[in-house]
Amino acid sequence: MQIIAPYLLFIGDATDDLSIKMARGAADWRPELCIGEMSVDGCTVTTGLNETTIEEAASKGAKTFVLGFANSGGVLAPKWHTYIIKALELGMDVVSGLHDKLTDIPELVAVAQKHNQQLFDIRHPNANFKTGSGIKRSGKRLLTVGTDCSVGKMYTSLSLEKSMKSQGVDVDFRATGQCGILIAGQGVAIDCIVSDFISGATETLSPNNQENHWDIIEGQGSLSHPAFAGVSIGLLHGSQPDALVICHALNRTHMRGLPHTAFPSIAATIELNLTAARLTNPNVKVVGIAVNTSSVSVEEGKTYCKRLSEEFSLPCVDPVRDGTDAIVNTLINL
Amino acid sequence: MQIIAPYLLFIGDATDDLSIKMARGAADWRPELCIGEMSVDGCTVTTGLNETTIEEAASKGAKTFVLGFANSGGVLAPKWHTYIIKALELGMDVVSGLHDKLTDIPELVAVAQKHNQQLFDIRHPNANFKTGSGIKRSGKRLLTVGTDCSVGKMYTSLSLEKSMKSQGVDVDFRATGQCGILIAGQGVAIDCIVSDFISGATETLSPNNQENHWDIIEGQGSLSHPAFAGVSIGLLHGSQPDALVICHALNRTHMRGLPHTAFPSIAATIELNLTAARLTNPNVKVVGIAVNTSSVSVEEGKTYCKRLSEEFSLPCVDPVRDGTDAIVNTLINL
Repeated sequence: MQIIAPYLLFIGDATDDLSIKMARGAADWRPELCIGEMSVDGCTVTTGLNETTIEEAASKGAKTFVLGFANSGGVLAPKWHTYIIKALELGMDVVSGLHDKLTDIPELVAVAQKHNQQLFDIRHPNANFKTGSGIKRSGKRLLTVGTDCSVGKMYTSLSLEKSMKSQGVDVDFRATGQCGILIAGQGVAIDCIVSDFISGATETLSPNNQENHWDIIEGQGSLSHPAFAGVSIGLLHGSQPDALVICHALNRTHMRGLPHTAFPSIAATIELNLTAARLTNPNVKVVGIAVNTSSVSVEEGKTYCKRLSEEFSLPCVDPVRDGTDAIVNTLINL
Repeated sequence: MQIIAPYLLFIGDATDDLSIKMARGAADWRPELCIGEMSVDGCTVTTGLNETTIEEAASKGAKTFVLGFANSGGVLAPKWHTYIIKALELGMDVVSGLHDKLTDIPELVAVAQKHNQQLFDIRHPNANFKTGSGIKRSGKRLLTVGTDCSVGKMYTSLSLEKSMKSQGVDVDFRATGQCGILIAGQGVAIDCIVSDFISGATETLSPNNQENHWDIIEGQGSLSHPAFAGVSIGLLHGSQPDALVICHALNRTHMRGLPHTAFPSIAATIELNLTAARLTNPNVKVVGIAVNTSSVSVEEGKTYCKRLSEEFSLPCVDPVRDGTDAIVNTLINL
């Protein structure tokens, strides 16, 4: 699968900032890949990109129409079919991160075939994966791991990629979730894989590479999350990371969605992840900590990061407020 | 899903003992649920049950026709369609553990509908599972965990169930693989679940129960296997076991299928599993060790088990040679 840029980001009639996370991710991290956004009456949010029509976007060379919104249940409402069909007719592929599949709708499949365009349901990986082998691959890999879900693993990964690129490092961001896949143009939605193939699919995501090449692999879930640790450990084993960055969000009191659960410490998170990661890479190291400190003042955030940095003898940053150069410097000097 | 007994075990033209593992599991552990076996010309193996025809089995009340063989690739050859159709016409449901789905073959679906019979593709769970919650359930649970794949977790689980039943304990075997599902008549093929739902699906497998009721949950994979640890940890978290039994096969030198890998020690296996299991049940205990000692003499096997028993202060048995009463005695006195 290769999603071809430039994109037209369609956000429909969204009224909730969170629901256009996928469009926003692409607009924030790959504005150069985006022709613009398109919304319809009733939409109250924006990615910040210029509003454009399907026709305008097509005339500017848009290659992919992105359903950049989500809704509870991941339903694809029939009212969007005409927009999808117009995009296909004007020579665009269509990408959806919804639960409902584009390829389950005969009308859309027929139009796509007629115009020789592709429908990508990125939450439904259809590659035939093998089970993992654990065999060491060449090149270097960094995986972001978390105390919990939704603590900034994708953001941290993309920030690390950006910083490494700016320092001339040969680096690729490897996407494991829908937003990341749109940003990278490819990847595997790892939590949608049949469980037998989690680590096998992950192995294909960062293949053999040059010795000094880095893959920055987007983490998912947490080894301490009762629902998602299976995804996290399969991703960890398949990534065989040389380096881990621990991601955390300040002031969480319980695991996401589970008010009855305890929250793991940074120390426990480091220990759990190193122990598991050593199975496929005995030389794995933690190279930094990335904290979302947005719940406190800049000053308080800095104090917290400084304390963690001293406690663990590791660079500790808020990727949004500080960037991740401090972590990359450690990594380069490994 | 509820597979209805009695079964007719169809082993086709199998020539390899391992390929009829599913039929053999049912014949060994639930002979009372089996009317007999059926094979065709060229078959050189047997479950030991009486050969019977579909018509004879139907007249004796068979309710389910079981495709009890497997082949590389899990292909359902068209030559078996006529047998399946005959079984459906004679009032049987059909169960398949193959990769190819019965429900993908329009002819079989049509016949099943006409005769109001069901087609069960047990490697393709179609229930809508939720993500795990980690919320404590009532009743007691034991999970078998392994140093590796294929070390006897299903056998040990069934032996424990049998021993507990004979001692009057209220107990259910909970199946997580194809063979186990056929034996139990229900269950979830956990390695076929989308990875987001591993622990959620496991939670549904052993629901709230009476305080003194035990679920014996069939383990899968190993936390030390680079391909399958994701399945194993999701199963562990979703099972929230009170008790673990460590399963091991003597004289393994590397993880199944991966000659380049190291094999974990029993001590490391205990530690890894306890650490992970405490996330959803802080009171989890290891209650015994089950070793497949078939690669050595009975005497050598006994010596090995005695040594492990002393080293870990736990009952250690070969479930085939010794049964598992020693472990159940420890469990009952917990």
